[in-house]
Amino acid sequence: MKPRLMTPGPTPVPEETLLELAKPVGYHRSSEAKAILAEVSEDLKYVFQTKNPVVTLTSSGTGGMEAAVSNCFSAGEKVILLIAGRWGDRWRNLAKAFGLNAVVVEVPYGKAIQPAQLEEALKAHPDAVGVFATLSETSTGVGHDIAAFGKLVTATPAILVVDAISGLGCMECRTDEWNIDVNVTGSQKALMLPPGLAYVSISDKAKARIDANQSSKTFYFDLKKYLSKIAESDTPFTPANTLIKAQRVSLQRIRKEGIENLWARHARMARAARAGVQAMGLHLFAEQPNNGLTVITVPEGVDGNAVLSKIEKQYGIKLANGQDNMKGKIWRMAHMGYLDLFDVLAALSALELVLHEVGFLKEVGPGVAAAQQALAAKA
Amino acid sequence: MKPRLMTPGPTPVPEETLLELAKPVGYHRSSEAKAILAEVSEDLKYVFQTKNPVVTLTSSGTGGMEAAVSNCFSAGEKVILLIAGRWGDRWRNLAKAFGLNAVVVEVPYGKAIQPAQLEEALKAHPDAVGVFATLSETSTGVGHDIAAFGKLVTATPAILVVDAISGLGCMECRTDEWNIDVNVTGSQKALMLPPGLAYVSISDKAKARIDANQSSKTFYFDLKKYLSKIAESDTPFTPANTLIKAQRVSLQRIRKEGIENLWARHARMARAARAGVQAMGLHLFAEQPNNGLTVITVPEGVDGNAVLSKIEKQYGIKLANGQDNMKGKIWRMAHMGYLDLFDVLAALSALELVLHEVGFLKEVGPGVAAAQQALAAKA
Amino acid sequence: MKPRLMTPGPTPVPEETLLELAKPVGYHRSSEAKAILAEVSEDLKYVFQTKNPVVTLTSSGTGGMEAAVSNCFSAGEKVILLIAGRWGDRWRNLAKAFGLNAVVVEVPYGKAIQPAQLEEALKAHPDAVGVFATLSETSTGVGHDIAAFGKLVTATPAILVVDAISGLGCMECRTDEWNIDVNVTGSQKALMLPPGLAYVSISDKAKARIDANQSSKTFYFDLKKYLSKIAESDTPFTPANTLIKAQRVSLQRIRKEGIENLWARHARMARAARAGVQAMGLHLFAEQPNNGLTVITVPEGVDGNAVLSKIEKQYGIKLANGQDNMKGKIWRMAHMGYLDLFDVLAALSALELVLHEVGFLKEVGPGVAAAQQALAAKA
Amino acid sequence: MKPRLMTPGPTPVPEETLLELAKPVGYHRSSEAKAILAEVSEDLKYVFQTKNPVVTLTSSGTGGMEAAVSNCFSAGEKVILLIAGRWGDRWRNLAKAFGLNAVVVEVPYGKAIQPAQLEEALKAHPDAVGVFATLSETSTGVGHDIAAFGKLVTATPAILVVDAISGLGCMECRTDEWNIDVNVTGSQKALMLPPGLAYVSISDKAKARIDANQSSKTFYFDLKKYLSKIAESDTPFTPANTLIKAQRVSLQRIRKEGIENLWARHARMARAARAGVQAMGLHLFAEQPNNGLTVITVPEGVDGNAVLSKIEKQYGIKLANGQDNMKGKIWRMAHMGYLDLFDVLAALSALELVLHEVGFLKEVGPGVAAAQQALAAKA
Repeated sequence: MKPRLMTPGPTPVPEETLLELAKPVGYHRSSEAKAILAEVSEDLKYVFQTKNPVVTLTSSGTGGMEAAVSNCFSAGEKVILLIAGRWGDRWRNLAKAFGLNAVVVEVPYGKAIQPAQLEEALKAHPDAVGVFATLSETSTGVGHDIAAFGKLVTATPAILVVDAISGLGCMECRTDEWNIDVNVTGSQKALMLPPGLAYVSISDKAKARIDANQSSKTFYFDLKKYLSKIAESDTPFTPANTLIKAQRVSLQRIRKEGIENLWARHARMARAARAGVQAMGLHLFAEQPNNGLTVITVPEGVDGNAVLSKIEKQYGIKLANGQDNMKGKIWRMAHMGYLDLFDVLAALSALELVLHEVGFLKEVGPGVAAAQQALAAKA
Repeated sequence: MKPRLMTPGPTPVPEETLLELAKPVGYHRSSEAKAILAEVSEDLKYVFQTKNPVVTLTSSGTGGMEAAVSNCFSAGEKVILLIAGRWGDRWRNLAKAFGLNAVVVEVPYGKAIQPAQLEEALKAHPDAVGVFATLSETSTGVGHDIAAFGKLVTATPAILVVDAISGLGCMECRTDEWNIDVNVTGSQKALMLPPGLAYVSISDKAKARIDANQSSKTFYFDLKKYLSKIAESDTPFTPANTLIKAQRVSLQRIRKEGIENLWARHARMARAARAGVQAMGLHLFAEQPNNGLTVITVPEGVDGNAVLSKIEKQYGIKLANGQDNMKGKIWRMAHMGYLDLFDVLAALSALELVLHEVGFLKEVGPGVAAAQQALAAKA
Repeated sequence: MKPRLMTPGPTPVPEETLLELAKPVGYHRSSEAKAILAEVSEDLKYVFQTKNPVVTLTSSGTGGMEAAVSNCFSAGEKVILLIAGRWGDRWRNLAKAFGLNAVVVEVPYGKAIQPAQLEEALKAHPDAVGVFATLSETSTGVGHDIAAFGKLVTATPAILVVDAISGLGCMECRTDEWNIDVNVTGSQKALMLPPGLAYVSISDKAKARIDANQSSKTFYFDLKKYLSKIAESDTPFTPANTLIKAQRVSLQRIRKEGIENLWARHARMARAARAGVQAMGLHLFAEQPNNGLTVITVPEGVDGNAVLSKIEKQYGIKLANGQDNMKGKIWRMAHMGYLDLFDVLAALSALELVLHEVGFLKEVGPGVAAAQQALAAKA
Repeated sequence: MKPRLMTPGPTPVPEETLLELAKPVGYHRSSEAKAILAEVSEDLKYVFQTKNPVVTLTSSGTGGMEAAVSNCFSAGEKVILLIAGRWGDRWRNLAKAFGLNAVVVEVPYGKAIQPAQLEEALKAHPDAVGVFATLSETSTGVGHDIAAFGKLVTATPAILVVDAISGLGCMECRTDEWNIDVNVTGSQKALMLPPGLAYVSISDKAKARIDANQSSKTFYFDLKKYLSKIAESDTPFTPANTLIKAQRVSLQRIRKEGIENLWARHARMARAARAGVQAMGLHLFAEQPNNGLTVITVPEGVDGNAVLSKIEKQYGIKLANGQDNMKGKIWRMAHMGYLDLFDVLAALSALELVLHEVGFLKEVGPGVAAAQQALAAKA
């Protein structure tokens, strides 16, 4: 059995990156370590498509989200939260923990927040100082139109804070051009590294808020310290330096492929996934699906959990179940990280074989054939 | 680009086996080293399906073939060579190098030696003391009916020597039940290790010939020494001990899957490959194809070399070209080693996409769909 | 050049642990992942010598310290800080960031806080609700008598919070027996892992404070969440799961050696280091040196920075310089992590050779000979 | 316990070389594979100090020795064997296996063959067509004066064949300048790789003998084929291609250090080993010790096997015992491969501690101190 990890994080990591992690550990304050962090920081800017600094935190992605909340805002300040699923909810919980005055714009699972909704909220709340959005809502497979959000927010005093944790690197995301002030991602999604690092880009507009914030109660996630240290390619606290060194290897791979080619390849994979799934008579759960994962509604009469379990046990492919009360109702097939076209085909093949085995499909072939046709089609 | 190596050796090696190779090197005469060799030798017997000793040589598979020739026979002795391709030719060259009196039974590339041909040769040459055959002729994709050969040879004074280098582990091969006296394989095919080790099983009938042979001129490949040492789980010369330690890991994987399941899985993969290829309108080159690789005749009007090159450059999949004067005339898609059903599907997908791109196929889909149907069919 | 990393974090990591990091990445919510975390948590309890839960945070050690401060205390509460160097200062900065009312007991660099000083402070401040101490003050090499501190604090309503980041695992530390309420350590010191994980044990007394704390502003470091999740062998946020898996391997090594043997071995290494250093006519900087590192006063007339540089460039051994204004005034030779007796001897040999080269020592030999005698002596 | 392998093969391998072995396996006939073999071949010429081709065989070092014997000589030809121990004996056994007419010049274990002895033999046997010598006789620790041998042989029609398996790379050896016609070494000694490859350099004088040899019975070790293939950076049979790729990494390390610096470093290590051993009151077994290993006579009244066992079990250091009837009579401490000065110090320290423990030494210190002084001394 050859395992294929197709969950929306962690994702498969290239062998050369993994082997980098097996090298002897070095000192994190050496000039070599600084040169590595400098290179990683530059390559992160490229992946973020930003000229602003990108800081590296040793934490889960949620640590990066907390850094954004705790540094940029004071208790009581008004912010607009755009919530379309579980990860939007994380913004809600963070806002609550730090006492922000949250205005919530929310849509049901499977739907996407529309720019018009944000426009209305901004009008109704001209005193809002922040807007929180989610690039790829992995709980539902929805992708948001961050470019449109940015156009709206940039015209206001508010800053746009984006959770791009599972989207950055596998779908178009232009931090500067799209006016994202604070962009947060993690190492374990499209950046092809194990979990452990969060990355946060900070615009001048956001920086001004951070500098002005007197009430922030944080030490480990104090972005002022990280910004000051990254200017000399250093970190305020002992970082997960072997992860940083390995991130360099995966980033070099991204550089080599080219960020736009990377986006195009994921778009091709996503088209194939969607075509294959629909050819099996299944339905996409997200109204506005993103290119990092394909979320499928479990059809009536099929035991969603059993199908996933069979796919894993018989074919070694790990898809993700729905989370919380979505469990058993959707299947989440991620195609981000060190995966290629043929891994998508493998997942579709296994899904089709199991759906045949459990009697949902009379015959197999149309699913993989439709995916194959999508692969052959010009974009 | 994610590389997939689908040549008939070397083949992909599981990550856990590769990582075993990265462990600190140990002493090859320690009790731990002997325990490892003992375990490997037992597991090799299981894979060979033999109760006879299997010795481990540090060499290519050809070294194992030479050991069989130089130890079991003296110059001038008559042997029958069954030749159906380039690897059968290796027996011819070895026989020549060691001065054997070779009777050649030969068929054109793509054909298989039939048991009746051997029967006739044995009748015509009752003084033959050896018969040399090839389990999987990887230059053409042919598989031979070794069981039938064994039934014929066992009734004579001759011993049956088989080159099972690229077949053992991915197609049925029952050394004892099929009366194979000397069975030779290499580490880098279905046994999921890099090249560097050859394995040779030796029956009592073969052992008697080796013991009686006074004229053998060999030292490094002296099987008497290896047999004597393996009895105490040792080797006469410093072996490639890290490869042996890693072989243990891959053999444990085979043990866990079970040898008959392994054969069945490769049969399933081979059926899918053949179905997919034929659904693309292509023809199988071998009249009697084996389960370790599928050899395809390059169709008229298609540049065979260019197609392989595109498959590799655009899709990362390395298929093998024909060798020598077969170059450009056949494509060889191996499905042995650490590969699964979906790697076969990947290769078919890439082949179909490229054949579409170069204009040979009007549309894509039928190839992968047919393979998928073969995967779903009961064996 | 064979590098030897002898800084007080990161430290060398065993090869088998590093290779664990190179294995394919798995899903962090699988039952296998939970079993691994369960095992790691049990082994951490053993290393901590506690029956209380030990939670795993994905962060630097400082993240663990922040978790202790932000969860157990509210702004304005009075705490006693025992400060003997740079790491004691970290408690000061954290207390300040979170608005605690800090009573500082401080000694100059090189000195240790004495139990009597704490006793006095506790008497003077009966309303103190917390005491913060440092097991191994790596900026000076001092070790503190935490057992004595614990005896004093346990009789009061205050909780004892200890930074054991660079000491736990290389010097005696009995969390429960010594009445440590919150004990914090990191992965990258004696626990033989790269940086990226912090571990925090929490006593019932501390738990009561955490539960009662209404004003805590934290989300990522919310210990209530970690405690609740660890009860089911899970984590609230995506953890650095490959580090956790690798930590298991290093912890198994510690289990096998036995925690008391580990302490004894480090004591032996430390005795050898101190004997060797003193035999070279050098002076120990710490009045109460600990067993994890030996800090040496740079003698008059010797260029401290140049000596370290020569040791690294000529002999591959990385010792640590003093930090901040101690730079060039002390040398810090750590002997924690995957290092053995002979690595200490190597560092002493290199130091002696360089001190001879720069003219400080007339002859070499006495340093390594004294270390060797210390190694031979009964403890 | 941190293991240190100090046997004369296999030897420790650098981590970066080991990790190269864990990379995915590639195809051995690709242009990338040829480029790697080309680079390795060039670097081997540098290490051998030759302009002649150096071929790579997949075998133990003995395979390289057999290739020299079987290719360069015909049965019945007269050769002179210089035998000073077990590895000289290997030449004797090979000569016997291939029917050569051997003239033996032999000295007792611990002694070295003197040039005068060879001179005399050459005079007595002007019809000798080959001379076989051993650079480092690892069974006794003796080093031979190959330069002097070469001067004598080059003036005759005979070719000089040298077993440099355990010496090349850790002691001076100038193939061309010293007139070595066939120089054989293995991967697992000073070249810092696991076992599995043998390397053979071939002079024009040797090549002429090979080309003229009609009676050679070999196929796998046919040097004509290897020479012809290496000219296009290829090999006649599937080589252990992952070992070749890893050899590149270790050879790059040697290139970086510089061959003369490498020799000088080993000389320094050997001086320290000899000084340390003698300061413990022990005697060197070899009258003319080489720089790759130090062989020590077990003193009267000491159980040689028990001491080695204690050194390994208590201190993790693996020294080699004497072989065959030398077992228990000598200790062999190798200092070749990926080892540095401090590993020698470690071995001396462990030996001294154990000799103290078993009562042979009254006190410890003089051994390591003497080694330290040798390290400090100008060469």
